[in-house]
Amino acid sequence: MAKGGFVTSITRQSEDFPGWYNDVVLKAELAAYSPVRGCMIIRAYGYAIWESMRDELDRHIKATGHSNVYFPLFVPRSLLEKEAEHVEGFDPQVAWVTRAGGKDLDDWLAIRPTSEAIIADSVKDWIQSYRDLPLLMNLWNNVVRWELRTRLFLRTTEFLWQEAHTFHATEEEAATEVETGLECYRKVAEDWLAIPVIRGRKSEGEKFPGAVYTTAIEAMMRDTKALQAGTSHMLGQNFARSAGIEFLDRDNQLVVVPIARTEDERAAVESVLEPLERHLAEVTTASGPLRWQVDRREESPGFKFNHWELRGVPFRLEIGPRDVSAGQAVLVRRLDRAKETLSLDRIASELPARLLSCQADLYRRAVEFRDANSHVVDDYETFKSTLNDQGGFLYAHWCGQASCERQVNEETGATIRVIPFDGEPEAGRCLIDGRPSAQRVVFARAY
Amino acid sequence: MAKGGFVTSITRQSEDFPGWYNDVVLKAELAAYSPVRGCMIIRAYGYAIWESMRDELDRHIKATGHSNVYFPLFVPRSLLEKEAEHVEGFDPQVAWVTRAGGKDLDDWLAIRPTSEAIIADSVKDWIQSYRDLPLLMNLWNNVVRWELRTRLFLRTTEFLWQEAHTFHATEEEAATEVETGLECYRKVAEDWLAIPVIRGRKSEGEKFPGAVYTTAIEAMMRDTKALQAGTSHMLGQNFARSAGIEFLDRDNQLVVVPIARTEDERAAVESVLEPLERHLAEVTTASGPLRWQVDRREESPGFKFNHWELRGVPFRLEIGPRDVSAGQAVLVRRLDRAKETLSLDRIASELPARLLSCQADLYRRAVEFRDANSHVVDDYETFKSTLNDQGGFLYAHWCGQASCERQVNEETGATIRVIPFDGEPEAGRCLIDGRPSAQRVVFARAY
Repeated sequence: MAKGGFVTSITRQSEDFPGWYNDVVLKAELAAYSPVRGCMIIRAYGYAIWESMRDELDRHIKATGHSNVYFPLFVPRSLLEKEAEHVEGFDPQVAWVTRAGGKDLDDWLAIRPTSEAIIADSVKDWIQSYRDLPLLMNLWNNVVRWELRTRLFLRTTEFLWQEAHTFHATEEEAATEVETGLECYRKVAEDWLAIPVIRGRKSEGEKFPGAVYTTAIEAMMRDTKALQAGTSHMLGQNFARSAGIEFLDRDNQLVVVPIARTEDERAAVESVLEPLERHLAEVTTASGPLRWQVDRREESPGFKFNHWELRGVPFRLEIGPRDVSAGQAVLVRRLDRAKETLSLDRIASELPARLLSCQADLYRRAVEFRDANSHVVDDYETFKSTLNDQGGFLYAHWCGQASCERQVNEETGATIRVIPFDGEPEAGRCLIDGRPSAQRVVFARAY
Repeated sequence: MAKGGFVTSITRQSEDFPGWYNDVVLKAELAAYSPVRGCMIIRAYGYAIWESMRDELDRHIKATGHSNVYFPLFVPRSLLEKEAEHVEGFDPQVAWVTRAGGKDLDDWLAIRPTSEAIIADSVKDWIQSYRDLPLLMNLWNNVVRWELRTRLFLRTTEFLWQEAHTFHATEEEAATEVETGLECYRKVAEDWLAIPVIRGRKSEGEKFPGAVYTTAIEAMMRDTKALQAGTSHMLGQNFARSAGIEFLDRDNQLVVVPIARTEDERAAVESVLEPLERHLAEVTTASGPLRWQVDRREESPGFKFNHWELRGVPFRLEIGPRDVSAGQAVLVRRLDRAKETLSLDRIASELPARLLSCQADLYRRAVEFRDANSHVVDDYETFKSTLNDQGGFLYAHWCGQASCERQVNEETGATIRVIPFDGEPEAGRCLIDGRPSAQRVVFARAY
């Protein structure tokens, strides 16, 4: 098991969450560090997950009437500086091209940290009357923000993302579009990735630089910290990158592991694999054709079990010589390691229902985890002790003033993640200054 | 026809090909100039064509065993300079990030002009034994080359492309992979885009900086100049961007134009549109579901005809009130403006065959055009006069020496596009120095 040995070297999640996260991402070959500071390489398995997410979100976005377009990577400094609030927010993070084609440039070029500035300048000529509106554009591209502390997938200097920008004839229509955009995210996060999120509005202090207001969906990581999983802004609409490692469990895959020690056993197992593969190729699930593969590598079954468990494949089908005689195979569910013996001719027809219920169980488990780590607190002392002892999401009253928000952040490190859309109206008093509040907001430490 | 007036302002192709090309690209809203020198905006219609080409090529590349991955946009100067021949080839075209996060950088970062340098450095740790080979990676990304003269889609400072990089245990296997890569291009160009190409090897002077050898497919533009439409190299494999405007005609689309002057006429036409739309939604063609739309805008029929002709939609279906009474519609083929009256209930079933034969006619027309503009020449005087008077591809003998190739280029502007794989062996004498040659090569002026 020389090659299998790496599995035991993974940090325990309960001891060091960031360490565990990095180990999994690197050892499952989702990504690798690169020779460029803060930039990562997305490896084949990680990129396949990205493509699959991208296609799913793209489908939702196109269904709301957006067309995909492409704008330049470079934003001239003179353009970026037109929007004072915008440039103040992004300037410390910008990478500048100052030299190109063997010459120093008069007007430096920013590598886009986001595309608002270049789009606003470009489309002004395209919109001549109300007939040209609404203009609904969606972009898949790479952006660069010079980050001091980076983390694979969650925060890197260069990252792949999707940003949508829309132009409307009326403010009302634009506001509706902000809601539509956020709903696309919620659907993909909850219904497809099985990640429960809280929808809501950001406080002034947390909104996008230059936006009138920002709405967002917030997810909880397994260490109970918050992760912003998507944002939708009034004044342009801007979707952030999504939630990283949490996707692994939710992938629609199945791996088949043949188990055989001798040539005879191998031949026996092979004899049932061929018809099984034909049936698997015809299986359609809720999210398209079933993704599956047979692992015929010359490695031990234990090595293969570890290999696929690390990569988060939700179901494993084990077929050994004794199974072949009995006309059956053993289906193992990664989530809870539950084993089930199925007859070979029923496997293909049973799989879609198994995948659906696995997806539902994953989602329920994630909601239970979030609920177990959400706390309702009424005074600042309880707030601080709960945050330090237990972490998680804290539902508390806030008067709406930036000074109170800032004090909480400076003294505890927590920020207001969202002012929930679905929150119950409830009269209460601000944690800090005791002024009246009509609704609880969500505080948390965040990535 | 105020809005339709723009159609008449398009430069005639026969008078000024580059002017015509630019007019079509801009006025069909495929692309727009951007505020950044040499960079363009790809608009919705152009990006949809790109996505459709990308998906088709991606399918072929994945079928040959490649996995998609992503490498960083930045290449540290120290890495780029490791490969002397490579950096010499690209250095004059590199854009440099020298300042980021508010500080000057010690090691400047190149915006990737291509990814060989960063990939070679990164994968060295991944390949530990022959078991890890072959490593077949494919990248879809943006690259930057500081170009002095730019042309929409064909040559821009930033462009979207696809590059594949493979690592093999043996040279033989690598050579086979070079062929496989080029064949992916040929298939997409000829079988899907209906662009005939010549396959062959590049001369030493025209090969990729750092490659052992380069193979390529070359297409002929409508002004008879050559366009390199794809390259595959020994030592990394590298596919270039594709052929631009020529795709327009080949798109699998149909537009339905209802014709009605009064409310009554409109109601009559609408009554047949609904069942027609249901049938069209079920049509499957050789390249997937039929792409079609009904143009219900409140514009004149003439405006709509121009609008869709400019955008290269290959078939237009006209339905007026008289057609409704007769239970028919008129199908107009853009290629030759041929009109055909079809009964309404047969349209959906007849379309796939019509699209196939249109594709075949387009391909045949392109081959005829290329053949009519290809010349066999034996002496340098004829070579020069043919090139100046007629242009096109010139099949001539060349001794294989770089000095003769250079002299032709300096005196005529033509380069050797390819040494064809499919060329007939034929004894002859070099255009320049009369030394023996065993095969004709293709000379042309190129984009």
